[in-house]
Amino acid sequence: MYYYVAIIFTNIFVDFFMMSAFLNRFCGKTFHAFLKNINKIKAFSQGVNLCERRQNDVDKLYSTSSKSKQVYLIDEDENSNKSRVSSFNKYTNRSYTCGELRSNNIGESVNLCGWLEYQRMNKFVVLRDSYGETQLLINEKDLKTQRLLENLPFESIIQIRGTVLSRPKAMINEKQVTGEIEVLIDDLKVVNKAKNNLPFNIREFQKAKETLRMQYRYLDLRFPQMQRNLRERSRLIMKMREFLFNNNFVDVETPTLFKATPGQFKQMLMAGAIDRYFQIAHCYRDEGVRSDRQPEFTQLDIEMSFTNVDGVINLIEELLLYSWPEYLNPIAMKFQRISYKDALENYGNDKPDIRFEFKIQNCTELFKPNEKLVDDDFGAYFVKIPKDYANLNKQIKELMLGLAMNYPNAKFFQSKVNTPKEWTSKINKLLTSQVATKFVEENKLENDSVLFLAYGNKNEVLSLLGKVRLEYVNFLENLGISVRKKGMHFLWVVDFPLFEISEETGCLQSAHHPFTAPHPEDLHLLKSSPLNETLLDLLKIERNTMQHIIDMLGSGCPPHGGIALGLDRLLSILLGTTSIRDVIAFPKNFEGRDPLSGAPSYISEKDQKLYHIKSIPSNKLKN
Amino acid sequence: MYYYVAIIFTNIFVDFFMMSAFLNRFCGKTFHAFLKNINKIKAFSQGVNLCERRQNDVDKLYSTSSKSKQVYLIDEDENSNKSRVSSFNKYTNRSYTCGELRSNNIGESVNLCGWLEYQRMNKFVVLRDSYGETQLLINEKDLKTQRLLENLPFESIIQIRGTVLSRPKAMINEKQVTGEIEVLIDDLKVVNKAKNNLPFNIREFQKAKETLRMQYRYLDLRFPQMQRNLRERSRLIMKMREFLFNNNFVDVETPTLFKATPGQFKQMLMAGAIDRYFQIAHCYRDEGVRSDRQPEFTQLDIEMSFTNVDGVINLIEELLLYSWPEYLNPIAMKFQRISYKDALENYGNDKPDIRFEFKIQNCTELFKPNEKLVDDDFGAYFVKIPKDYANLNKQIKELMLGLAMNYPNAKFFQSKVNTPKEWTSKINKLLTSQVATKFVEENKLENDSVLFLAYGNKNEVLSLLGKVRLEYVNFLENLGISVRKKGMHFLWVVDFPLFEISEETGCLQSAHHPFTAPHPEDLHLLKSSPLNETLLDLLKIERNTMQHIIDMLGSGCPPHGGIALGLDRLLSILLGTTSIRDVIAFPKNFEGRDPLSGAPSYISEKDQKLYHIKSIPSNKLKN
Repeated sequence: MYYYVAIIFTNIFVDFFMMSAFLNRFCGKTFHAFLKNINKIKAFSQGVNLCERRQNDVDKLYSTSSKSKQVYLIDEDENSNKSRVSSFNKYTNRSYTCGELRSNNIGESVNLCGWLEYQRMNKFVVLRDSYGETQLLINEKDLKTQRLLENLPFESIIQIRGTVLSRPKAMINEKQVTGEIEVLIDDLKVVNKAKNNLPFNIREFQKAKETLRMQYRYLDLRFPQMQRNLRERSRLIMKMREFLFNNNFVDVETPTLFKATPGQFKQMLMAGAIDRYFQIAHCYRDEGVRSDRQPEFTQLDIEMSFTNVDGVINLIEELLLYSWPEYLNPIAMKFQRISYKDALENYGNDKPDIRFEFKIQNCTELFKPNEKLVDDDFGAYFVKIPKDYANLNKQIKELMLGLAMNYPNAKFFQSKVNTPKEWTSKINKLLTSQVATKFVEENKLENDSVLFLAYGNKNEVLSLLGKVRLEYVNFLENLGISVRKKGMHFLWVVDFPLFEISEETGCLQSAHHPFTAPHPEDLHLLKSSPLNETLLDLLKIERNTMQHIIDMLGSGCPPHGGIALGLDRLLSILLGTTSIRDVIAFPKNFEGRDPLSGAPSYISEKDQKLYHIKSIPSNKLKN
Repeated sequence: MYYYVAIIFTNIFVDFFMMSAFLNRFCGKTFHAFLKNINKIKAFSQGVNLCERRQNDVDKLYSTSSKSKQVYLIDEDENSNKSRVSSFNKYTNRSYTCGELRSNNIGESVNLCGWLEYQRMNKFVVLRDSYGETQLLINEKDLKTQRLLENLPFESIIQIRGTVLSRPKAMINEKQVTGEIEVLIDDLKVVNKAKNNLPFNIREFQKAKETLRMQYRYLDLRFPQMQRNLRERSRLIMKMREFLFNNNFVDVETPTLFKATPGQFKQMLMAGAIDRYFQIAHCYRDEGVRSDRQPEFTQLDIEMSFTNVDGVINLIEELLLYSWPEYLNPIAMKFQRISYKDALENYGNDKPDIRFEFKIQNCTELFKPNEKLVDDDFGAYFVKIPKDYANLNKQIKELMLGLAMNYPNAKFFQSKVNTPKEWTSKINKLLTSQVATKFVEENKLENDSVLFLAYGNKNEVLSLLGKVRLEYVNFLENLGISVRKKGMHFLWVVDFPLFEISEETGCLQSAHHPFTAPHPEDLHLLKSSPLNETLLDLLKIERNTMQHIIDMLGSGCPPHGGIALGLDRLLSILLGTTSIRDVIAFPKNFEGRDPLSGAPSYISEKDQKLYHIKSIPSNKLKN
């Protein structure tokens, strides 16, 4: 019976691609800055009336303490400084980041490096780096520094040595983490002058269009938002690794250059006694790009030997708990579960949005007396919208009719239920008044509610009502009526089917892949042993393309289970971005192109020769 | 001057591809098992004379304690077991690995899963998994288990519930970590029967050829050696990540689908204020496969803004110290450094083997009087082999002459120095006796030493003597004479040239890439600002292929420095494997093919159509 034992537990192959869609997007909530040092970049806007008094302080500082002050030049005397250098500055020429200085640093001589964010009146400079911004002060008498900064374009790279001063009280900027201090420039070096007229400025309020942002990604990455996204991505993935490593999973890199087969390298690893495998895998897909799709994307791939459905589910729940961002509300163990069957029956699809009710309900029994309508595939279902959310104006009605057009085998009926009585008369073409009254009673229709009803081919009816349910709520939310619960709502969809009918060929095909284990309760439904060979016959897959996998399964392969989480989508949801492009350093655009380098492009003559490739006009490539 | 400032510090671009070559291979030292639970797999070989006594014990156990014993079936009552499950077994059906049980577990009821390693006399079974092996005992009266195991092929997957017993004293196997115990089978399940006659057995003493090992990689991975290699790979890389994460480096994934340009994504990240970047990057090379080369390989890629040569060197030294395997002798900070120039002058190449002396020495001055020979490129050098290592038989002499053949502009002279006096007469065609005597005196030639001397084109002379030096020592070591120091000897080669002459075109080309910063001391040698545009002109690189990089450098790009360590090579050295293939889960073979799946192979008609590709016989592809 277990010869060629089937491998992946079918009922947990819901992958995160789907799962992530069930997560609530992070809406309307203010993030606490998770990188505490990154603040919104604001143009420097303090007054000038205190400047004169400040220059007096500067003069005093130079006259009284120049000897006792600890002064060192950039790059020199590195060691004297080492002990107080934080891990952000180790191995660099700076002693502090631009987001690090506080009032307890007053009096210190510091080295700072960064971008010239702003300057004003030959007196104030805002220096920015990945961690924040620091206000620099130019000594009125320091003509050399003034000359260096004169007409220096914003975004130029400068390096300074300076002394930390407290800002005059009236100048303290409480919104800025470094707002209590400023740094008097002792020495300034222009390290890399920027060009004038960059494609766009690094100002929140001047954000460029995405096309331009992607073409000049290196400028776009300087925005605090992109800094936050990439740094949080790094953190989350590191925490996931840490969790898996602590649980004795082995990080194994699998090749990307290989022959396409239905088998997976992770199955080879299971047969190879790497019994707890994971990989943050760079993956490829050849499909149209959407806001949640990229030609290259990243998955957390996991596989375990000798496990079961609960094993995999527990692992993932604990993994998410462990790596969960601090800036979000904690998630509760355990996640909800729903069977594939119930998901279809109650939500009309296999990735239900459980953040609101309005579930699909079954009224097939009521239609049964009407034998003309009823065959094996027949179903009658409805969605009830309670009075508080009822709205059935012309616009939404037309939207719904548009949806129904795509389902020729489903009759669709939508109406405002002013009173149940009125409704029973409206529906008299469809239901006898006796049945209609029974419907009203059984389903407790209330005044001023809305009812969507559909009957006919069961699959079409459910799919249609699933869309009606979603679109109706989207419509309400676009009107400003909040329906969905806030926060993250995880849901496991379990007990997926082993086979499905291919839309393309009409034949049976594996819902996941042909080496998936059947649900224990369904074992008897499959032909008897040897199980997987039958399965292959069933699926009409050429055996020679996967002989090595059949060999592998017969070599002593432990039962195993696994999952893959789409990390780009997960991060996009956790960070509340509108597209996965915002959590990827160098994404392709909506056309699958790289606007930065101009890829893809033609192959050079030289390379064509090298790889025995020839480009032929498509009209000459008939057949 | 710093307009378009140059970017990477030339003098640290020695990468680990080279560096790893300087590490001593791990020779002749016994590894302590770093995974303490993995032991060499040994066929079970205990005696039988104690069997009878043991069955009595078994009977007693069943008769006296069957009620009080904690008995549970596999998969059932998971929770009662949870508290004592180690992180190796979490989320699985087993309560212990096969390398985990000790005498303090005696009396426990346990679940074990694994491969049927061996069975004997219907009485003893050796169960193996990734962590070790455990001896199972079959109750003489348990006919069901005996029937299940009868003729069950080795490598079949079984799952048992059993009771931990102490082994009779005479049966204790001290070489086995689980050698004090055995597990009496209470219930056995054959989970996945293996086929008979697998291509090879998992026995150390029957190790298959590499071709077969790679074709059935999933079998090969079951060997403790491969388990160790992959698990150590995972550990080392995780430690490196941990170090970098603790030092606030950001893990950023860069795309693999892009247009080939001389720029790098890590430079874009520097311009984009990701000031401390790293990535364990999956890389590709299109070159012949060798024992230290694969079409796909893995690099630790690092880049930092506002750093310098010492910053990068310190980072890497601390990184290696942090992640260094416990089973090796600790490494000492700081690593040795040598300049590129000195490396060539003393070792004849830029990746000197510093594990032995016999350095190249300069005697050009002695040849100077002979003006006929001397032009600007002239050099005369020699390698002295002291008497204890002197051996110049016919075989080695011919080997050396063979090397010299490749250097037409270098005169080569090798001889045994029986006495210095004899040598001066031998060399009289080349040097006047006065000069020869001076040579002998200055260089302290001793009796019975060996001398290799070469003169002519300096580059050829140095390259030749570099090879002579290496081949001479290889020759000695093949004879069993140990010359190289043991252990790991790191060496930094610094101050690499900015340009080199292309062997292909004879033109100047960047030694690293065109956006590399010149050595500060050599700045004056380059034409004046704007530096990099001049540089591009110098290198005749089409500017339009890299306009986006020029734009990036002009957008405010911090100076930065970085490195990439070849992890496969590093691991191969640390683990003492003969090929990097042994530290890669699914490597390509020496032909660049994948014997497992049979890749590469032809593209199907269907795929050709999909991607607008047509295969044309090469004879029709003229031009």
